[in-house]
Amino acid sequence: MNKKSISASIIIIGNEILSGRTQDINTQTLSTWLNSIGISVSEVRVIPDNEKMIIDTVNTLRKKYDYIFTTGGIGPTHDDITASSISKAFKKEYKVHKQAYKILESYYKPGEFNEGRQKMVWMPENAELILNPTSGAPGFHVENVFCLPGVPSILKSMIGSLRNKIVGGKPILSHTISLRTVESEIASSLSKIQENNKDIEIGSYPFFQAGKLGVSIVLRSEDQSKINNCNSQILDFVKEKNIEVVDR
Amino acid sequence: MNKKSISASIIIIGNEILSGRTQDINTQTLSTWLNSIGISVSEVRVIPDNEKMIIDTVNTLRKKYDYIFTTGGIGPTHDDITASSISKAFKKEYKVHKQAYKILESYYKPGEFNEGRQKMVWMPENAELILNPTSGAPGFHVENVFCLPGVPSILKSMIGSLRNKIVGGKPILSHTISLRTVESEIASSLSKIQENNKDIEIGSYPFFQAGKLGVSIVLRSEDQSKINNCNSQILDFVKEKNIEVVDR
Repeated sequence: MNKKSISASIIIIGNEILSGRTQDINTQTLSTWLNSIGISVSEVRVIPDNEKMIIDTVNTLRKKYDYIFTTGGIGPTHDDITASSISKAFKKEYKVHKQAYKILESYYKPGEFNEGRQKMVWMPENAELILNPTSGAPGFHVENVFCLPGVPSILKSMIGSLRNKIVGGKPILSHTISLRTVESEIASSLSKIQENNKDIEIGSYPFFQAGKLGVSIVLRSEDQSKINNCNSQILDFVKEKNIEVVDR
Repeated sequence: MNKKSISASIIIIGNEILSGRTQDINTQTLSTWLNSIGISVSEVRVIPDNEKMIIDTVNTLRKKYDYIFTTGGIGPTHDDITASSISKAFKKEYKVHKQAYKILESYYKPGEFNEGRQKMVWMPENAELILNPTSGAPGFHVENVFCLPGVPSILKSMIGSLRNKIVGGKPILSHTISLRTVESEIASSLSKIQENNKDIEIGSYPFFQAGKLGVSIVLRSEDQSKINNCNSQILDFVKEKNIEVVDR
């Protein structure tokens, strides 16, 4: 992209993703939402439940990008080390967050707010909470680093609470044209169009659907008129080459 | 993990993953396979189709880990810039690979090996090929950096060709115990068991299945007897606490 836009990076924390046991879907949830509010995701990193790795990754990325989102590692068990690692990354004390304590104390029935659950209110000093409408235990953020849980349904339900903490940019618009062709047939025409439309991001993605090959061309920009203009140039060469446009 | 094991990193190259348009599944395919041959994945990065970013990421990671796998960006269109970027990362000439040219020349019917397709035989000088049984166009590797396509079915079919190029380690064994409980109930017992079994990686993962909550405890190690030993310790406290073991 050409213009300075608002940037984000996602850090997926969890051995279970790196071992292949679990398929990450939080990247897609967060990316889709962030793009819709005009924030482009510049980089995603998947790292293990390892304190040094979390500290180094957070400290490298939080200086490079406007927003950082972490997922995973904020539950009650011994392998949940995100909150203590973030405290160290920011050189802040790791301690009981009073407001979080009150929230969970009233969320659970008397006697149920046990030692394991109490671990979830330990956070970096002065962290701000991200409310959790699904299972009580809040996420938190320190400066531009937002820490969310790894369970996809809970993470999804917390995006509403994030909305008023994040300042978005101009939404990134996109348009897709799907063609019954193969990439090599359109590669040189598409190359020329990219040359003439430098501020549009043009992606080409082969697909295989209902037994037939095709290519989706995706145009992305903050400017609808530029997308429209580029779209007509593509439809022109598609017509010239007699390529079928797939109605999707 | 305690022992020095063989390490890998995966670099997913593609704007379509970062925009949320496409769900990456290549990480899980590669991680599952690598773990099965005793190579642990230390880190995954998802980066855009951006030359500088590809060069910097490859050059940082190839020195840190034994193997690097990239996916995406080796097709025929203008946004496929992985091969030229890898050439620059290694300061090698980007040129026609004769063996790859021969493979594609005989793969396509006369006249079909057009300009777009010919782009796919441009690679870093002296790259070694990774054969592609699905769609002809080979991947390649330079030293410890292995470049694969982004289309999941094609990538999967190329793992067989990789097998004799990669030296694995002791397979990482794992055992899962699924319990009808919540994490906070078992957190402190599990913590003690992790203390007493420092060379086992113990992960705790909540799940929600058929309307019921549960927790999967995953034990990982190269040593089966250590896993067995840790497993009995867990079954002991599970019995003490009267927690149901879910037959999965």
